[in-house]
Amino acid sequence: MEEEKSLAKENLILQAARKRFAYYGFSKVTMDEIARDIGMGKASLYYYFPTKESLFKAVISHELDEFLEQAKELLKANISAAEKLDQYVRQRLQYFRELINLSKLSFHSLYEMKPLFGDLFEVFARGELEIITQILLEGNEKDELSVENPRQTAELLLHILQGLRLRILPKVHETFINEEHYEQLREEMLLFVNIFLRGIEKKNRRG
Amino acid sequence: MEEEKSLAKENLILQAARKRFAYYGFSKVTMDEIARDIGMGKASLYYYFPTKESLFKAVISHELDEFLEQAKELLKANISAAEKLDQYVRQRLQYFRELINLSKLSFHSLYEMKPLFGDLFEVFARGELEIITQILLEGNEKDELSVENPRQTAELLLHILQGLRLRILPKVHETFINEEHYEQLREEMLLFVNIFLRGIEKKNRRG
Repeated sequence: MEEEKSLAKENLILQAARKRFAYYGFSKVTMDEIARDIGMGKASLYYYFPTKESLFKAVISHELDEFLEQAKELLKANISAAEKLDQYVRQRLQYFRELINLSKLSFHSLYEMKPLFGDLFEVFARGELEIITQILLEGNEKDELSVENPRQTAELLLHILQGLRLRILPKVHETFINEEHYEQLREEMLLFVNIFLRGIEKKNRRG
Repeated sequence: MEEEKSLAKENLILQAARKRFAYYGFSKVTMDEIARDIGMGKASLYYYFPTKESLFKAVISHELDEFLEQAKELLKANISAAEKLDQYVRQRLQYFRELINLSKLSFHSLYEMKPLFGDLFEVFARGELEIITQILLEGNEKDELSVENPRQTAELLLHILQGLRLRILPKVHETFINEEHYEQLREEMLLFVNIFLRGIEKKNRRG
């Protein structure tokens, strides 16, 4: 009972913090404001999250979990493996953009903040790899795809998405991600997925 | 006549410098040694190349030109567009490795030295883009490939190769490129090209 109450409070804090971060950006938000938002004493807030960084980390962690949950739902959908992969990449792009908005940090700053997040991103990367591998395996089983080594291919797909993102990183060095960069990245990733999907499709299946 | 002699001398210097750089690495080579190698006075050498950096830049520029020349030869070969692309990526990998060996610099250092090279790499990138676009256009014409936007697709291909390389860059931060990293990159790029090629192949062409 006590534990439940505690979890509910934590969630309340996370939601309030998420809103503030998304609106004002990481650096402009204070712990005072978040405490006030939910009518909580500052001491109580610090009991749950001893620093703003730890609160921010918890918000990001929560977002990552939500994304993976959403992706697992996609796995169950009644659509082809190719459609699942396409959807996955679109959701991933959208999510990545939200993550950037959340921090109001540039690509580069978020990248440099990585050490703060510890193994958070590694755990996330493993989760992503599992999901993509699963989609490829399923595609093979249903005779939609012809993927020789699903795990290696899933890794390649994720590495390419990561690489395409890293490529434009130096260009946005000290600036926020703007619409132009995002659109460029989006267009490139979707063209890539399109070609990639045709490349792993089982031959002679269509037309 | 005088000009020819001068060009011949310049080539002599470039060849000697290339050998030394490849064997000892950029930082360990002195201008004295290069001058001695070809029995040239130091003053004469400095007349052609006022600094070791400018000589190194000329060597790299020469290598880049040679690679593009070699690639243009590939364009004329009597093989399919898909084979040309595959060959191109293999040659590119090999060449990139030689470039690294030439400087005996880590990935990272070479990347950081980029400002020294000015627009050298940009000119090279444009050359590469032209060649890949040409291969794709030819593949379309011969009904081997089905590429909607050859230039954009050529750009995507090059961006992916670049991105895959950038991805492993942070890992080799202060070390030389080792066999393991190179093999990892090579394997990944070849798997990618394989899938990419199947993705742009004209459908129903093969059994």
